[in-house]
Amino acid sequence: MSGFKDLMAFQRQTEALAQVAGRLGWDQETMMPDGSAAQRAEEIGALEAVLHARRTDARIGVWLSRAKAPDSDGEAQLRQLRRQVQRAAKVPGRLVEEIARATSLAQGIWAEARANEDVAGFLPTLAEVVALKREEAAALAGGGDPYDALVDDYEPGMTGAAIAAMFGAMRPRLVALREKVLGAEAPKGVVGTFEQGAQLALSREVATLFGYDWNRGRIDLAVHPFSSGSGHDVRITTRVSETDPFNCLYSTIHEVGHAAYEQNVDPAYALTPIGQGASMGVHESQSRSYENQLGRSRAFTGWLYGRMREVFGEFGIADAEGFYRAVNRVHPGYIRTESDEVQYNLHVMLRFDLERALIRGTLEVADLEEAWNTRFRSDFGVAVDRPSNGMLQDVHWSCGLFGYFPTYTLGNVYAGCLMQALRADLPDLDSDLARGDPSAATDWLREKLQRHGALYEPRDLVRRACGFEPTEGPLLDYLEAKFGAIYGV
Amino acid sequence: MSGFKDLMAFQRQTEALAQVAGRLGWDQETMMPDGSAAQRAEEIGALEAVLHARRTDARIGVWLSRAKAPDSDGEAQLRQLRRQVQRAAKVPGRLVEEIARATSLAQGIWAEARANEDVAGFLPTLAEVVALKREEAAALAGGGDPYDALVDDYEPGMTGAAIAAMFGAMRPRLVALREKVLGAEAPKGVVGTFEQGAQLALSREVATLFGYDWNRGRIDLAVHPFSSGSGHDVRITTRVSETDPFNCLYSTIHEVGHAAYEQNVDPAYALTPIGQGASMGVHESQSRSYENQLGRSRAFTGWLYGRMREVFGEFGIADAEGFYRAVNRVHPGYIRTESDEVQYNLHVMLRFDLERALIRGTLEVADLEEAWNTRFRSDFGVAVDRPSNGMLQDVHWSCGLFGYFPTYTLGNVYAGCLMQALRADLPDLDSDLARGDPSAATDWLREKLQRHGALYEPRDLVRRACGFEPTEGPLLDYLEAKFGAIYGV
Repeated sequence: MSGFKDLMAFQRQTEALAQVAGRLGWDQETMMPDGSAAQRAEEIGALEAVLHARRTDARIGVWLSRAKAPDSDGEAQLRQLRRQVQRAAKVPGRLVEEIARATSLAQGIWAEARANEDVAGFLPTLAEVVALKREEAAALAGGGDPYDALVDDYEPGMTGAAIAAMFGAMRPRLVALREKVLGAEAPKGVVGTFEQGAQLALSREVATLFGYDWNRGRIDLAVHPFSSGSGHDVRITTRVSETDPFNCLYSTIHEVGHAAYEQNVDPAYALTPIGQGASMGVHESQSRSYENQLGRSRAFTGWLYGRMREVFGEFGIADAEGFYRAVNRVHPGYIRTESDEVQYNLHVMLRFDLERALIRGTLEVADLEEAWNTRFRSDFGVAVDRPSNGMLQDVHWSCGLFGYFPTYTLGNVYAGCLMQALRADLPDLDSDLARGDPSAATDWLREKLQRHGALYEPRDLVRRACGFEPTEGPLLDYLEAKFGAIYGV
Repeated sequence: MSGFKDLMAFQRQTEALAQVAGRLGWDQETMMPDGSAAQRAEEIGALEAVLHARRTDARIGVWLSRAKAPDSDGEAQLRQLRRQVQRAAKVPGRLVEEIARATSLAQGIWAEARANEDVAGFLPTLAEVVALKREEAAALAGGGDPYDALVDDYEPGMTGAAIAAMFGAMRPRLVALREKVLGAEAPKGVVGTFEQGAQLALSREVATLFGYDWNRGRIDLAVHPFSSGSGHDVRITTRVSETDPFNCLYSTIHEVGHAAYEQNVDPAYALTPIGQGASMGVHESQSRSYENQLGRSRAFTGWLYGRMREVFGEFGIADAEGFYRAVNRVHPGYIRTESDEVQYNLHVMLRFDLERALIRGTLEVADLEEAWNTRFRSDFGVAVDRPSNGMLQDVHWSCGLFGYFPTYTLGNVYAGCLMQALRADLPDLDSDLARGDPSAATDWLREKLQRHGALYEPRDLVRRACGFEPTEGPLLDYLEAKFGAIYGV
């Protein structure tokens, strides 16, 4: 027992310091004066050095070796810590530092290359990052599949092969749906100017409806919306376009999905190794189901249409049905982050196949652009017009985040399963949503999934919540039914 | 050299982490959601534990023993660090922890006692804090004067005896001035409602005039105005009363004095032991001179009157002379923080004498209230009507901040000296100020004093800036001349 107590006390301080680091990041994106950037980098560096020293502290191994968990929650705490320690033991400190240095530089070089449409200017840097990540993946895999070892950082227990099988089943149906939908007539969009203050007020109102706890959070503006923090201080950001009110509104609902997940974790787990979301994929399942399956449903958009008419008056949409179609418009485009429910996962699958090949050594950086452009034309039916619309569009690879992309689609798949189970349990959900009340759904998600934090392995958690093994079927059925009806295809 | 380099590298990270701790404090007062307080306490506790471990790290002594400073800046760095190490070595860790625990609890008990006018409910707690601080003072003093040892924490090089001599010379003249002024007719105050947004906009404008660098700072609202941070991220807060526009305006100018001092320290000193203000007293000399000697001058208030008329229209003051008198109104009152230039130092002197006697053991906590009330009646001519207007009004003693109070008046004294020297160097200052331009004065202060950070001992720094030994004379002459003229006494 004593090893367990010492370990939890030590870990609690580490988790508290990690929250501080997260809040520094929040401050940097929302509050920090422009001229403070260089000093802030030193502050974050100093704090990260403290965190790294604590996470690799030799005492953790000693405590773990004699720790006995008092209960099943304790077992999960130890499981999480063992994973961290085992991972840290496999990667030489020299390599950790090289990756940190290389990716820190690479982000600036990537941003400049993207601005200048300069693939050649980015390739040597990307090659260095890929080489280092291959080395790290090999060290972690110990003879196993190197890409699996990286996926495990973001989605414990998931493998490249399992993802490939799932994506392989999804891709033809999504490509077919995409072609049918884009061949049909596009719904009318909104027109007019939507005042920033009114958009923010409406977003706050909707965040409250989706269960965001303002007593332990706040909303601010940022260039890229995000959610930040765990436990009792979980903040969100949003952005505003005065011509596109859905940008602010659905960014907010998406971030509320992430933030409510963190806020709803059992308070007993706060500042412990299981006191946050179970994985990136499960996190995305919450943000996506709040945003899409609930927020973009026919029932909820019916309520939202009435509310937006009250707030903004006329905006060129005659009725709730037209509004639902406008909210769910599918449009051609090159950019993943601007994509819609139909096409989003195709963007992810492209990246997954390419990054998996890069890490496994079956694709070289020199051939990446051609591979990207070929695949894009095949899945999206058009040629990439410039690198910033192609392989230079995402920051992830310059950060060394290989293995991260598939969790976006995994989140959508989990959201599909969760919504199928949730709707079976809640037959009156649509009449609630039509009154602007998603609380039965968010309560269900809190009770079945969110409160457990990282108590269970991600896939196991989703299975327990749904009552069945998660597969891609429910998501595909949902997308085909929804967009088939909207587009009459 | 190697000891010096190692030490500076280690210290740089400590300073960066101290900046992070400061920013957490800022966030707590300005941005933090209410429900985050308990988690925040753990976050701050974890960070303070890291800072404490670094500041008492045994390697510092080893590095110091072989460190050779490369230049006079380096000598000052080492002097500052030696002071910290020597202080830490004298106080047992057990006592440090007891003081931290006792003062943390005492602040809550004090707040409740003040709210309930319950002196008896606070005395046992205060007695414990005083006993612990006496023990600490004795450990630090090593046979010398215990109060001097505490003063040295806030104003290095200053002694209780030197302060007592200075205050002894000031008190009769201030009491006499106070009596004459309060015997004369009070100037008319402003009337009307002053919209919050317009007040904040004007405060921003004035902060800019006083040289606040928005590229490395920002302003927000807080219950108690403060300045926070050093180097390249120095933030200020203010507050707004819709009936008293001077609250927001002069709180802002005061905090700009503190913040500009930090912003103007030589960038080469950033994140080093001399990279911030030299002492509490010198800091207060900057905030006070910005606020009072410059901001409440006849010349600057002349400009401000015109600007406020443009912004707010009529507010019951007929001309710039009447406005100057309104800004400098002296009013009877019990509360130090609401006091004016004439009476403020009398509030400080009362506390100085009482806390010095408490630490030296010539006054006991049981006799404190009577001693306070007797002295107040003697200096202010009225009886204290209730404890929250008397000995329960300030938080300082519950925090263990004995030795801090005199630095407020020391700051005013230094401000008096600096302004005498500055006006001698800048004969056109009043015509600048009358155009709303204090930059010649703030440039002078930056060049002569602020840029040096903690390079020199505080008193030495002020002497170098002024060109003469600082004394109380210039402040008293200034106050008697200014308020004699305003009140015709």
